[in-house]
Amino acid sequence: MKKKWLMMLLAMITLMAYPVSAFAADGPTNADLQIGLDTAFTFLAFILVFFMQAGFAMLEAGSVRMKNAGHVAGKTVLTLAIASLCFWALGFGLGFGNGNSFFGTTGFWYGGDSTGSAFESLAFSDVTLNVKFLFQMAFAAVSLAIVSGGMAERAKISVYIIFGILFSIVIYPVVAHWVWGGGWLAELGMQDYAGSTVVHLTGATAAVVATILLKPRLGKFNKEGKPVIIPGHNQVFTVLGVIILWFGWFGFNPGSALSPMGGFFGHVALTTNLAAAAGGLAALIASWLYFGKSDIPAMLNGVLAALVAITGACAFVEPWAAILIGFVAGAFTFMTSQWLERAGLDDPIYAFSVHGIAGMWGALSTGLFATPTLVETVGVGKAGLFYGGGLHQLGVQALGVAGTFVFVAVMSFIILYVMKLAIGLRVTEEEELMGLDISEHGTYGYPEQMKLIADSESKTPKL
Amino acid sequence: MKKKWLMMLLAMITLMAYPVSAFAADGPTNADLQIGLDTAFTFLAFILVFFMQAGFAMLEAGSVRMKNAGHVAGKTVLTLAIASLCFWALGFGLGFGNGNSFFGTTGFWYGGDSTGSAFESLAFSDVTLNVKFLFQMAFAAVSLAIVSGGMAERAKISVYIIFGILFSIVIYPVVAHWVWGGGWLAELGMQDYAGSTVVHLTGATAAVVATILLKPRLGKFNKEGKPVIIPGHNQVFTVLGVIILWFGWFGFNPGSALSPMGGFFGHVALTTNLAAAAGGLAALIASWLYFGKSDIPAMLNGVLAALVAITGACAFVEPWAAILIGFVAGAFTFMTSQWLERAGLDDPIYAFSVHGIAGMWGALSTGLFATPTLVETVGVGKAGLFYGGGLHQLGVQALGVAGTFVFVAVMSFIILYVMKLAIGLRVTEEEELMGLDISEHGTYGYPEQMKLIADSESKTPKL
Amino acid sequence: MKKKWLMMLLAMITLMAYPVSAFAADGPTNADLQIGLDTAFTFLAFILVFFMQAGFAMLEAGSVRMKNAGHVAGKTVLTLAIASLCFWALGFGLGFGNGNSFFGTTGFWYGGDSTGSAFESLAFSDVTLNVKFLFQMAFAAVSLAIVSGGMAERAKISVYIIFGILFSIVIYPVVAHWVWGGGWLAELGMQDYAGSTVVHLTGATAAVVATILLKPRLGKFNKEGKPVIIPGHNQVFTVLGVIILWFGWFGFNPGSALSPMGGFFGHVALTTNLAAAAGGLAALIASWLYFGKSDIPAMLNGVLAALVAITGACAFVEPWAAILIGFVAGAFTFMTSQWLERAGLDDPIYAFSVHGIAGMWGALSTGLFATPTLVETVGVGKAGLFYGGGLHQLGVQALGVAGTFVFVAVMSFIILYVMKLAIGLRVTEEEELMGLDISEHGTYGYPEQMKLIADSESKTPKL
Repeated sequence: MKKKWLMMLLAMITLMAYPVSAFAADGPTNADLQIGLDTAFTFLAFILVFFMQAGFAMLEAGSVRMKNAGHVAGKTVLTLAIASLCFWALGFGLGFGNGNSFFGTTGFWYGGDSTGSAFESLAFSDVTLNVKFLFQMAFAAVSLAIVSGGMAERAKISVYIIFGILFSIVIYPVVAHWVWGGGWLAELGMQDYAGSTVVHLTGATAAVVATILLKPRLGKFNKEGKPVIIPGHNQVFTVLGVIILWFGWFGFNPGSALSPMGGFFGHVALTTNLAAAAGGLAALIASWLYFGKSDIPAMLNGVLAALVAITGACAFVEPWAAILIGFVAGAFTFMTSQWLERAGLDDPIYAFSVHGIAGMWGALSTGLFATPTLVETVGVGKAGLFYGGGLHQLGVQALGVAGTFVFVAVMSFIILYVMKLAIGLRVTEEEELMGLDISEHGTYGYPEQMKLIADSESKTPKL
Repeated sequence: MKKKWLMMLLAMITLMAYPVSAFAADGPTNADLQIGLDTAFTFLAFILVFFMQAGFAMLEAGSVRMKNAGHVAGKTVLTLAIASLCFWALGFGLGFGNGNSFFGTTGFWYGGDSTGSAFESLAFSDVTLNVKFLFQMAFAAVSLAIVSGGMAERAKISVYIIFGILFSIVIYPVVAHWVWGGGWLAELGMQDYAGSTVVHLTGATAAVVATILLKPRLGKFNKEGKPVIIPGHNQVFTVLGVIILWFGWFGFNPGSALSPMGGFFGHVALTTNLAAAAGGLAALIASWLYFGKSDIPAMLNGVLAALVAITGACAFVEPWAAILIGFVAGAFTFMTSQWLERAGLDDPIYAFSVHGIAGMWGALSTGLFATPTLVETVGVGKAGLFYGGGLHQLGVQALGVAGTFVFVAVMSFIILYVMKLAIGLRVTEEEELMGLDISEHGTYGYPEQMKLIADSESKTPKL
Repeated sequence: MKKKWLMMLLAMITLMAYPVSAFAADGPTNADLQIGLDTAFTFLAFILVFFMQAGFAMLEAGSVRMKNAGHVAGKTVLTLAIASLCFWALGFGLGFGNGNSFFGTTGFWYGGDSTGSAFESLAFSDVTLNVKFLFQMAFAAVSLAIVSGGMAERAKISVYIIFGILFSIVIYPVVAHWVWGGGWLAELGMQDYAGSTVVHLTGATAAVVATILLKPRLGKFNKEGKPVIIPGHNQVFTVLGVIILWFGWFGFNPGSALSPMGGFFGHVALTTNLAAAAGGLAALIASWLYFGKSDIPAMLNGVLAALVAITGACAFVEPWAAILIGFVAGAFTFMTSQWLERAGLDDPIYAFSVHGIAGMWGALSTGLFATPTLVETVGVGKAGLFYGGGLHQLGVQALGVAGTFVFVAVMSFIILYVMKLAIGLRVTEEEELMGLDISEHGTYGYPEQMKLIADSESKTPKL
């Protein structure tokens, strides 16, 4: 009798359990739901990073003169086109394909979700491969967009196209492979959550090589060699560009979690936002002390520099450290942009200060501030100096920075120098004075306003 | 004894299983989670498509002269307002309500999620009806935004409002019903994943009819009948517009999957992006060969044309075919925009070339490139000619294009012709010379800059 | 024998059920999946609200003169920086920390997800605390952005910074606590789904106090005291700003559901969109009747006013009521902006009409239109007058409006009056004539165009 009751109880428990399980069997499994959710989340991150190109277009166009604005803005669309196709053809395979410590050798001419076995470095996440590809492609495009800043207002459009293609194939993917594709820096445990080094320092190093080889814009330095301010033509555009970039950075950094599960990406979003705010204020204050006026473009660059710096560190540091990292980045970028200019460098969008120097600082900062708990959560590298980790991680980060800088600088120099000899990098003086909108593309970006300027100049007696 | 052990084993298995099932019973079910995820995903897609109106505003405003910029930009907000209300009142029911092969007859004055039985054509997806409504409404608004391009710089604002209302009720929903609402083209198996035909060709056909009936802008053709270039006033705006549109297209095409489950939308996003990149490069190259200069607006239109073309085909074709479709669209749109202009058509934003001709090409392209595997996944139509499908699908696509073009052209002609007789379509010559900002709305979009132009002209001796 | 068969059947059922349950045990639980989904959804809402700052930048910059455009746009980035840091340090604790009926007293220097016990008022949702923090922070930033409108074209930048810091600490969080943080208005059952009162009326009340204390801009009223129109310099910017804001509002209102589960947020999105459309049309019609021309800025303000009004009511009302609420808001805002101007108030961006008066109307509207079913779904307050709820809810809403207005007005007055005595609120006449770009920041936002204006003025004989 007891047995009978036990069995009936057992039957009841089973039957109560059954409908729910059966229902689960009809619907998607939990693993399928997580794949769907993670893939949707990463897709959102991808489109945010993609949209950063609108930010670069507005930032860069607003930072140059009216006669070059259409050219500079239009280059951003070219950046997307070049990065999309080159990364599809070769870049993704070189960066994330299986291979050696330096580059990947599988997965060229990317063929879709079914080619996962060619990309073991990305197998840790359940996001579908197509969306992983798009996310990584958008990062490559951001790196290339940084390069375009260094070439502003004087490089031929053909030079940008050729260099952009080569950058997207033989420069960016190699660095990405080193850190994210299972290469030698990954093996050393380099911490670069979303690319202070991989994306920003890489782009900025190529930009500064271009800037040096191109030489300063006409009129940038006066006869005594002192820098002359050539202000951007539209601060509203630069403001819009910076807000779009800040917005897009919420895909860049938190999106690099590739999943909303567990909510860790929220920590990344928090540190990212606090750093950006601190960087903007730091640069504003710095400019106020230095110029006696609160400078809007300085504040904007401070926000960007802080975002660049926190990009590598966002997952490894506490909120207070994020504020500190951002504050230092903002203030330091302001000072270095002034120093570099006085040293004779004409970097029209301050690409090297904002993305290069702040990128280095961001890379080094995890060697100081990475906490043991967060390092364990992310699972890369060791804790930083201030958390008892000693100099180990700082050394790894410094090695990563140095390796990236030297590799990108040498490769960029070779490519650009060959091009300089072969076709010349720069438009003629006459073309530069006319502006690249008309000289390179045949129409002004602002035809009605340029006509006003021409009319006004023709009526103003030259001194 | 054996029985007893077996029963105990059974009990243990049951009890191990029970807590998990019970837990599932406490939390949401898997089906509920999928509904939540699919609805959130489609909502993301909706807001991206909604945001395309910002792209149209910048693209169209940047492509016209300063004296019409406020008018043209402002019309985009009107487009949203008209489409939102008309589609809610009647359009959604006519397009997606239950009905006959030509239009729907249920679900007018859309009443919310509980009215699902009136929209059987949308029952295939588990997304909640409110979000389905918003997604479809945003598509209708895009189609109407295309129309506004054809009317730029000379049509009365009242004409746009009245035509916009009628377009949103008796034109767009009918075509949507044919293809997506269970109408005659759906029955034939027409492939139009996200609307090369339904959205773009429909809008472009209405635009070209308006363009023809409105006649060219003053000064567009010289005394010999040759076209005079009337450049847009702000290429930075047009660049921003195109990047916003490209960004929004990631809602348009991948979002049409209505779910991230299984990751199929990632394939759609991949083909969409590759096509856009190829189209931009193709048009840039075409303009370089044709003009001797790389033309920025040509590149921008190439990106858009490729996006239009891949809209219908994105789910049915392989990446390489997407690149080809985009490349052909970009090059072909450049050529046709030149030909149509020389043939006497003044289509200020090139709406018909970009959305109409590329839309036709996109519709036909699945008849060539649709693969059997992808056709099976989507479950619409047959494979294309190059995959052994013969001419069947190509014929269906051609029929869909022809049917849509004829219907929209005839309806648009009737509506506009009646309006032409009743109230006139076009502002007076004097008003057109002043610009529509001041003549139609009473203020300039750029009051300070227009004053500069007026001052400059008053001081310039007329020849 | 029967028993044996029964037991075997039982075993089969159990074993069929087991694998699915076991699988669920391996993957994430359903509760974890929901947390991930809800957190991702709320993150999407956060970034949309964050992006509204780009909308404010374009709207406000476009609505002022060229000489102040860089200053006004740049202030938006400052708004983000101030709100991010102040809300992190103190605002979040004061607003949402545990405390009394007036403000919170726990959770200062916000420390991350693990500090949930300090924020009991937010425990109702499973979204991770970091993302809840970011979402609320973005709301605080929107409220502050509204204030900046009232200070446009004449307030010192230092005044905005100091007031912004204090507003983000002692004004906004207090009102947020009253309604959303468990304070006295929450206890009374005040209905304010996404902040018609908390966000918009609060910001607008501070703005109008600033506007009154700052006095009108030079030249705003002629010698007879009649208002002179000072048109904004760029309607394309204002259009872009409004579309961005409309887009961002899909995070503001539907995002306040904090979850896509059950699809209720779709209802909120639907009512939000219908109201915005109706408000734009209402204001366009009102301007047409009043001026004889359809006024673009009026239409844009109508869209915004309707969005402000529906913000509080969106979850409580039916679609038809949303259209009515939006229509009334659009028309009424147009009229009040005219009346206030004629009464001597110079509110350059119409912040008080758009966000204040429409915010009050929105708050009161749920007292009229809240339906019993929707009130039960949301679980706040009672049904409105037109649904048999009597005057109870209307009274609560009126009390909330009055309490908020008085508190914010008094606090703002005290802060600004002290600052007026201590450092002065306004730049000098000379600085105001030069424009705040050059006087406060040392560079023009549009250097090339300002030079044209200067050249033109120098050549125009003064009358």
